[in-house]
Formats: sequence, structure tokens, C-alpha cells
Amino acid sequence: MSVSTGEIDVMVSEVGPRDGLQSVARTMPTAVKHRWIAALAQAGLREIEVGSFVSPKRLPQMGDVAEVVQRAVQLPGVSVLALVPNLKGAERAIAAGTPKLTMPPSASHAHSLANIGMTTEAAITEVGRVCALRDSLPAGRRPHIEVGISTAFGCTIEGPVSEDWVIRMAVMLADAGADTVGLSDTTGYGNPAQVRRMFTRLRQELGGKAGGAHFHNTRGQGLANVVAALEAGVTTFDSSQGGLGGCPYAPGATGNIVTEDLVFMLEAMGLRTGIDMARLLAARALVAEGLPGEPLYGHVAEAGLPRGFAPAAARMAA
Amino acid sequence: MSVSTGEIDVMVSEVGPRDGLQSVARTMPTAVKHRWIAALAQAGLREIEVGSFVSPKRLPQMGDVAEVVQRAVQLPGVSVLALVPNLKGAERAIAAGTPKLTMPPSASHAHSLANIGMTTEAAITEVGRVCALRDSLPAGRRPHIEVGISTAFGCTIEGPVSEDWVIRMAVMLADAGADTVGLSDTTGYGNPAQVRRMFTRLRQELGGKAGGAHFHNTRGQGLANVVAALEAGVTTFDSSQGGLGGCPYAPGATGNIVTEDLVFMLEAMGLRTGIDMARLLAARALVAEGLPGEPLYGHVAEAGLPRGFAPAAARMAA
Repeated sequence: MSVSTGEIDVMVSEVGPRDGLQSVARTMPTAVKHRWIAALAQAGLREIEVGSFVSPKRLPQMGDVAEVVQRAVQLPGVSVLALVPNLKGAERAIAAGTPKLTMPPSASHAHSLANIGMTTEAAITEVGRVCALRDSLPAGRRPHIEVGISTAFGCTIEGPVSEDWVIRMAVMLADAGADTVGLSDTTGYGNPAQVRRMFTRLRQELGGKAGGAHFHNTRGQGLANVVAALEAGVTTFDSSQGGLGGCPYAPGATGNIVTEDLVFMLEAMGLRTGIDMARLLAARALVAEGLPGEPLYGHVAEAGLPRGFAPAAARMAA
Repeated sequence: MSVSTGEIDVMVSEVGPRDGLQSVARTMPTAVKHRWIAALAQAGLREIEVGSFVSPKRLPQMGDVAEVVQRAVQLPGVSVLALVPNLKGAERAIAAGTPKLTMPPSASHAHSLANIGMTTEAAITEVGRVCALRDSLPAGRRPHIEVGISTAFGCTIEGPVSEDWVIRMAVMLADAGADTVGLSDTTGYGNPAQVRRMFTRLRQELGGKAGGAHFHNTRGQGLANVVAALEAGVTTFDSSQGGLGGCPYAPGATGNIVTEDLVFMLEAMGLRTGIDMARLLAARALVAEGLPGEPLYGHVAEAGLPRGFAPAAARMAA
């Protein structure tokens, strides 16, 4: 197995096995999840969000998350994440040996109640509890705790969300003990001017604790928002293979930004991701195998690479 | 009829009636073209490329171009463009009273031969001939001559295209008499870093003669490239309603960038286009009427506007 270990400029964090799989009605068999995650690692992905420690009654697609984590952590060179909505999920994740937890408190109160059944204030307190649990563990067993503020760019229930509030909330979460705090455009409401402005403020306020960007492509603005975030200094981006999690009845109206299109854009711009485009595109076959009939998105997968395309590292070497 | 006449920050130039309609096999009836162009004007589009003065044997979809121009120039507040590949086309366009001509010489020699049947050098000379024809006319009858360099960001036949050559070619075209020279990503090969670099150079070399950007969304990079071009100071962008001209067998793999998604992005960023989103979205119905069964693209048309969305001018006034 060849795993890329060279220097990279931008970290692409694959969230398909979590954000993608939990958004589709079909359940991918555990064995295919293992093979898909291994294929992503082999393509050079260095961070993979492999599942969610939520109630299996609520999301049966995530019922095997502990097993998926335990297999994924054996892959060389991959940082394994799992989403935890609350302390109970964090306890399960830590028991399973998850090295990195991600928590999704919502800036919008209505979305917070709908998504994790608690107010925004309670969700911030819950992050503090999970951080306290982390701090109670022996040094070698403490997971990294990442927070991504959901609905940071607007909410389908409440509409516009105050930018000042999002930044204040980010500071509160960093103070509560989160290792990093990023911003998530859960609803595909963000625009490039807003993205540039908010990540600039986030980095000014949080310094080294400022986290990455999680964009959805609901209104086609996903990669445009990535360009704006890059300018603000963001170097970590979530994305999902095949844009998994989109609306099956709305072709092109994808959920997460498409990993293949994101990696193509970054590499074309001369930014090294450590990811091999051909292997990444080949890994789509495992999604198709594990979720037969589920639509996969992605312009590059459909159009192919440009004639004479060279990845960033090759051009640097030339 | 209400036509927006206020100040704008960015000019969106609709090319659907030309680039869109010439790329689809079906022919839109002339009467529907008239109504579609009128609806676009009523939505606030201030520049519309209404057709192409090419051989009707080669492109029967454009057989009615003179009639379409003559109707469109009667619409208040709209700058009417037509594409002319050569001097013969320019003569026909001028005879029809077209106020603005656009010419598409290719930076790639192979594409030039395939697209307009002449070498790149001959195409540059042809632009000079058309400019000489313009200069021979009485002052009040001289059309504006815009050039968009095709395959400026890469070519499906030749692969990468020299950036230095594209900039030299732009200077030659400006020297030949073109009023403006823009850059076209005919093949969807461009990336944001390249776009920013090349438009920055173009504006340095050409000053006030530097023209706009024409992007295709073949690899999903269209709006990301717009963000990069905005940073380089570009204020005119071509786009096509419904992304018309895409590949019918590849959902999402659109041709031109989608006007609705572009206008949404610009307005959300606080950049005034003068275009009313609701009327623009409503005009899609005329494309559907005139080209029954033809797929229309666009994320905003599918997902709807965000809750609480306010156009740029409304936010400025607030």
C-alpha cells in the first residue's frame, strides 16, 4: 500500500462516511465501509470522519460506528474522526478508541433544538463537559476535540444568523476547551464575501484554535466559498466523495462539496493535498457498490481531467 | 415594463440565446426567442448576446439571427450583442444593425482551425479587418467590437495553453482595434489561481481595453473562477440561463456558468447586478417552452433562495 507522506498545503477532510452516509436512506454494509475508507486512505486522504456516535435508533446507518472506528485507526497515516452530539456519544467514542471527536453545536437556536435536542447554550455547556471528560483521561488517551459551528452562515428555520453571535460563540467554545473551532455552512446559505469576512474574524479571535471550513453545495456556491476561505487563510476543508448526501430528486443539488471536485481545484491551483486524483476517482466504485442506486455527483468524475493535467507536486518538481 | 436603471457593481452578460442555443440540437422558435429575450431584459439583464452570424447551414439554430437582433434592439436599456466569427459575419451583423459584435479567436491553433476554420494568426488579422470595416462607417453607425480569446485557459485538443502567448495575443488584438479583449475558458479547464493571475496580467497590459470573463462550468469550477476574477478586478461576466448548452448525458456537467447561480452569488456578496432574482427565475419557463425536454441546470432554481435573502441594493438601502 502506498500512502502519501509528503508535505501538503491544504488538508482535505473526508466526511462522506459520516455526513454522507447518515443523509441517505440506504445503509452501507460494514464490510464495504471498511473497504471504502481503506481506499480513501490509499488515495492519500489524511483525515476521515468515519461515523457518528448517535442513537442507532435515530440513525441506523451509524449502528456499526465503533467497529468502523476500530478498523480505521489501523490504517497508516490517517487521522480518524467521529462526530459526537453530546457527552454520552463522547463516552462511547472514547471507549471505542476514537482519536479525534467533532461536535456540531448550532449557532441557530431552532436548528440546535431540531438537530441535537438542546438549546445552543446547553450545547456549548455540553462541549465543556466533553472537554472536562477529555482532561480527566491519562495524557496518552485524550482525544483531540474539534468543534464545527453548525448553521454559522444562516439557518433554514431562522434565516440569517448574526455574525457577531457566531464569533462570540466560537470564543466561548474555545474557552470551554475545544482544540479547534471551525465554521459549518450546514444549509448551503453562505456566500464568498461572508465566508472571507467570518473566517478572517475567526482567525483574529481564535488564533491557533481557529478550525476549518465545512461547506455544502446546495446553491452551487461550495467551491467559490472555498476560494474565499483560502484567502482568509483556511487550510482545512471538509468534503464528501460523490457529494454524497444530496437530494436524490434534485440532480446537481448536492449536499457536501464534492471531494473529487475540491481536490481537483486545489491541485490545479498548485496547492498540494497529498491526494492521487486517479485513486480518488476509483474509490467512487465502492460507494456505488455499497449503496446501489444512490446518485453520485461530481463534475470532474463526469467530465474527466483536463488534457495534460499535472498535480501540484509534479509541477513543483518540474 | 419595469427596467432597472440604477447603478450596478457587476455586469452579467447573458449568452444563453447564443452560446446556449447553438449548443443544443433543438431549435428554439423565433417567437419564443423574442419573448425569452424580452423576459431577460425585464428581469434586469443589461447585456444580452442574442445570436451568432454564422452560416445557417452550419448552425440552423441561428438562422433567424438578423430578425432576433432587430427585435432585441427595441428593448429599452439593453445592450445587444451578436457573435461574428469573421468579416462576412460582421458585414451581416452590421447590416442588421447590431450595436455590439463579439469575436472569438482561439489561443489554441488546433481549436482555431476546428472552430472557425482559420489559423490563430489569420483570426487575429480578421479581427483587424472587422475593426477597419467599423472605422470606415460613419461615427454614429460604428458597432462596439468586443473580443473574447477562446481556449485562453487550456484546450481539449492541445492541452495547456501558454499564458504568455494568451497575453501577447490580447495585446495584438487590442492593437488591431478591438474595443475590449476578454478571456474565455471555452473548455472548463481554468482554475482560480490561473484566473486571478491571467486577468491581473490582462488588466496590467490592456488597461481600459481589458474585457470580461467567460467561464464554463464543465469541472464545477465556474463560480470559484468568478470569485478569483472579481479579485483581479473583473466586473463583466458571461453566463447562460439554465446553464444551457450542457451535456444532456451528464447531469450537472453544465456548459456556461448558470446565470441564476451567478446572480445569486453576486447579490448575496453585496454586489449589485440590477437583476431581479424572481423575474430571472421565472424566465426559465420560456426556455422550457421553446426547447421542450431540454435539461435546465442551476442549484438556486432547484434549492430556492435562502430564507430571509435580501438582494444587494436592498441591504445597502437598509
